[in-house]
Amino acid sequence: MTISQALIKEYLKITGSSQVLTEDADRLAYSYDAAVLTPIAPALVVAPATAEQLGRVVKLTYDNDLPMTIRGSGTNLSGAVIPEPGDSVVILTNRLNKILEINQEDLYAVIEPGVITGLFAETVAKEGLFYPPDPGSLTVSTLGGNVALNAGGLRGLKYGVTKDYLMGLEFFDYKGDLVKTGSRTVKCVTGYNLGGLMISSEGTLGVFSKIILKLIPPPKASEAMMAIYDDVNKASETVAAIIANHILPCTLEFIDQKCLKLVSAHANVALPIEAAAILLIEVDGAHKAGVEEDANKNKEICGKIGAKSVIVAQNPEEKDKIWTARRNVLPSLARAKPTTVLEDATVPRSKIPAMVSEVSRIAAKLNLEIGLFGHAGDGNLHPTIMCDRRNLEEFKRVEAAVDEIFDVAIKLQGTLSGEHGVGQAKAKWMVKETNQATVEFSKNLRRAIDPKYLFNASKKVI
Amino acid sequence: MTISQALIKEYLKITGSSQVLTEDADRLAYSYDAAVLTPIAPALVVAPATAEQLGRVVKLTYDNDLPMTIRGSGTNLSGAVIPEPGDSVVILTNRLNKILEINQEDLYAVIEPGVITGLFAETVAKEGLFYPPDPGSLTVSTLGGNVALNAGGLRGLKYGVTKDYLMGLEFFDYKGDLVKTGSRTVKCVTGYNLGGLMISSEGTLGVFSKIILKLIPPPKASEAMMAIYDDVNKASETVAAIIANHILPCTLEFIDQKCLKLVSAHANVALPIEAAAILLIEVDGAHKAGVEEDANKNKEICGKIGAKSVIVAQNPEEKDKIWTARRNVLPSLARAKPTTVLEDATVPRSKIPAMVSEVSRIAAKLNLEIGLFGHAGDGNLHPTIMCDRRNLEEFKRVEAAVDEIFDVAIKLQGTLSGEHGVGQAKAKWMVKETNQATVEFSKNLRRAIDPKYLFNASKKVI
Repeated sequence: MTISQALIKEYLKITGSSQVLTEDADRLAYSYDAAVLTPIAPALVVAPATAEQLGRVVKLTYDNDLPMTIRGSGTNLSGAVIPEPGDSVVILTNRLNKILEINQEDLYAVIEPGVITGLFAETVAKEGLFYPPDPGSLTVSTLGGNVALNAGGLRGLKYGVTKDYLMGLEFFDYKGDLVKTGSRTVKCVTGYNLGGLMISSEGTLGVFSKIILKLIPPPKASEAMMAIYDDVNKASETVAAIIANHILPCTLEFIDQKCLKLVSAHANVALPIEAAAILLIEVDGAHKAGVEEDANKNKEICGKIGAKSVIVAQNPEEKDKIWTARRNVLPSLARAKPTTVLEDATVPRSKIPAMVSEVSRIAAKLNLEIGLFGHAGDGNLHPTIMCDRRNLEEFKRVEAAVDEIFDVAIKLQGTLSGEHGVGQAKAKWMVKETNQATVEFSKNLRRAIDPKYLFNASKKVI
Repeated sequence: MTISQALIKEYLKITGSSQVLTEDADRLAYSYDAAVLTPIAPALVVAPATAEQLGRVVKLTYDNDLPMTIRGSGTNLSGAVIPEPGDSVVILTNRLNKILEINQEDLYAVIEPGVITGLFAETVAKEGLFYPPDPGSLTVSTLGGNVALNAGGLRGLKYGVTKDYLMGLEFFDYKGDLVKTGSRTVKCVTGYNLGGLMISSEGTLGVFSKIILKLIPPPKASEAMMAIYDDVNKASETVAAIIANHILPCTLEFIDQKCLKLVSAHANVALPIEAAAILLIEVDGAHKAGVEEDANKNKEICGKIGAKSVIVAQNPEEKDKIWTARRNVLPSLARAKPTTVLEDATVPRSKIPAMVSEVSRIAAKLNLEIGLFGHAGDGNLHPTIMCDRRNLEEFKRVEAAVDEIFDVAIKLQGTLSGEHGVGQAKAKWMVKETNQATVEFSKNLRRAIDPKYLFNASKKVI
């Protein structure tokens, strides 16, 4: 580590003592994120406490030609906050954790980027409002990270993703100048839609300091059910049939037999492990009668397409049991083998039956254990490969499987990533989905906004 | 006009004869749009018929250093398609008018940019689907123009604006290369969200050739009502009260007395012209019982806040009468005086009472006739100044009023433009709402994407 003591003193001058970390243990703690990629320790970790400090830290880092990575809680699955090699700086946003305003009349909130997603959702819920995006990591993830990655979650089908809730944004550019975009109004077309550009830019274009998020009235009723299938195709066909019948459940999840067995073994949840697959479905709305009507129609469709049985939750405890099962899928898969490669190639929902059978074909062909679950209503499945990264021969097959999964997704008019982001992990596949002109256009745009390529250089578009 | 015959021949080679217009009458026909601004005739008007032709026309124009303006139907209200001075080219998208795909199962459509908004909405409605954005010009406007301006409309409160329906986009960059962004999937985070950047970029960053739009299931029931007020403040307070009670009408419109009288005089619609203001409210949903519940609650709120009476439409004819009144507001105002200056400064909806009284104060102070109507549920009012542009003294007062309206909107945490766009008309006010750093950031980004500043140079950010 070759960052000079003089420069460290300048950081200390901005943030105060104890907020500039250079010890090995600290550097290692910020060397990785939730992706299965090689850790890289930064030279320095800085934790500004205010937007003004954040802007000065960004400017100081940029002026000194140091690569920087902005980090919330590091829960992303694409290596989006693995530090850059060399003398790089990690800037933490966790201390910028104030909810600045919750506006009941105009249905929005103004927050700092380090606010925890789940805490925010709970806080607005206490005020009778609803913030729908619910990424799997919501108890830990920050809203700044959610905006940077355009986080999705279980409610995407009906309620959309983080993008659909971003009304306004303030961010620091490479000069440390504050850029403002969007508004507290529902409609705003003043200037470029820079919020639209910054969302899912993965820390490569600027550093967020303030976020305006849309809130909505919460649903007043909901019903949840579990549909059990002997035939995995019938489960996946049901997904398309529900949407084609113009019902938009708030959540429509698919879990295959492999996942069911692991959840059952690891999480002490009673599940129909003999089933080929199950669907977990929740419908909600502002009116109880309408929700019941949707639930009944849903149940009927499941039966018609070929569900062996459909169990409707009769009370909050039964509903909670259904979602506990779902929440335990990833932790249970993660316990099965040392390494868990969690993908999120996504297809138009009518292509889910094709995607499910292709994943199963790939698993058989490459002799890999792939669990399949995810947000079927969005076409956003998570093929999850259970493996051991230290087994190099096996890991080559894992990489081949990931390649094939992407090829299949694109052939089915889908996308490399529904919600996890490109980060380090998928940057090299960008051309496959788009074309060389798109990558050149993006790189050119990026170079203009970050002339020295110091913002998270190896991520997103390379 | 100094474009060489040799160059004209090159355009002809691309588009075929009769699609390159150079006659005075043609040039004048494309010299203006719906904004009250000075017309500028282009040197040349070109109408490519395919995406491939469009790309070649863009490249030829750029390579020859000619300023270009992409034009759909020219219905925008901000001067966004007034040609550039000098030897400029207008490229028409109207012949690119194919609906390429309507996907029932995955709820999206793929279209060319010249498809007419209203025709598209009707076509998808026939297939049992719903495209909500409904700008006032929808019978004439193109979807390409809607994306370029992020068009709003009457349904923004519940259903959002064009931005909320853009899933994917293909566009030509200045080199004539095709850039692809987004997907046919509900979730997609592959690459930068270039669709988010292109939306409302007003033809300054690239030329759209293909658009993927989200569709939704249509509502199955709706109820409309008219609430009549003796006191304009009570009407505007009702708007905030409805939202605060967590009802999201699909439409919530405000019309003041001045507008009511003009509609009544010009459009042969019976209206309560003695009222200080009226609200027109429609609620809709998937379930009849829920819609009735919302309608009753709405009626109750109107009464509680102080409506003199609330008339609920009892049948489709009565409902149609309500919306005929609304549709006739702008045409009636436009007939009152030679010049109609239609603004769309927008505020958070709880600030509507303040905005309404400020507009009335400004009208009195500057001795101007300002009609006030618009999408109150969005905070998106349209103060409309009826005047005569040839009266220079009066027009100075009009410009002063527009300035003051913007100042007030920003003071109330609103925005210069909710849905009409910045175009030529508002570019100079950008700094007022944002700051110099934001304008510099935007210009820098623009320069990278359009190095010669040939795409609609005088619009959006200058």
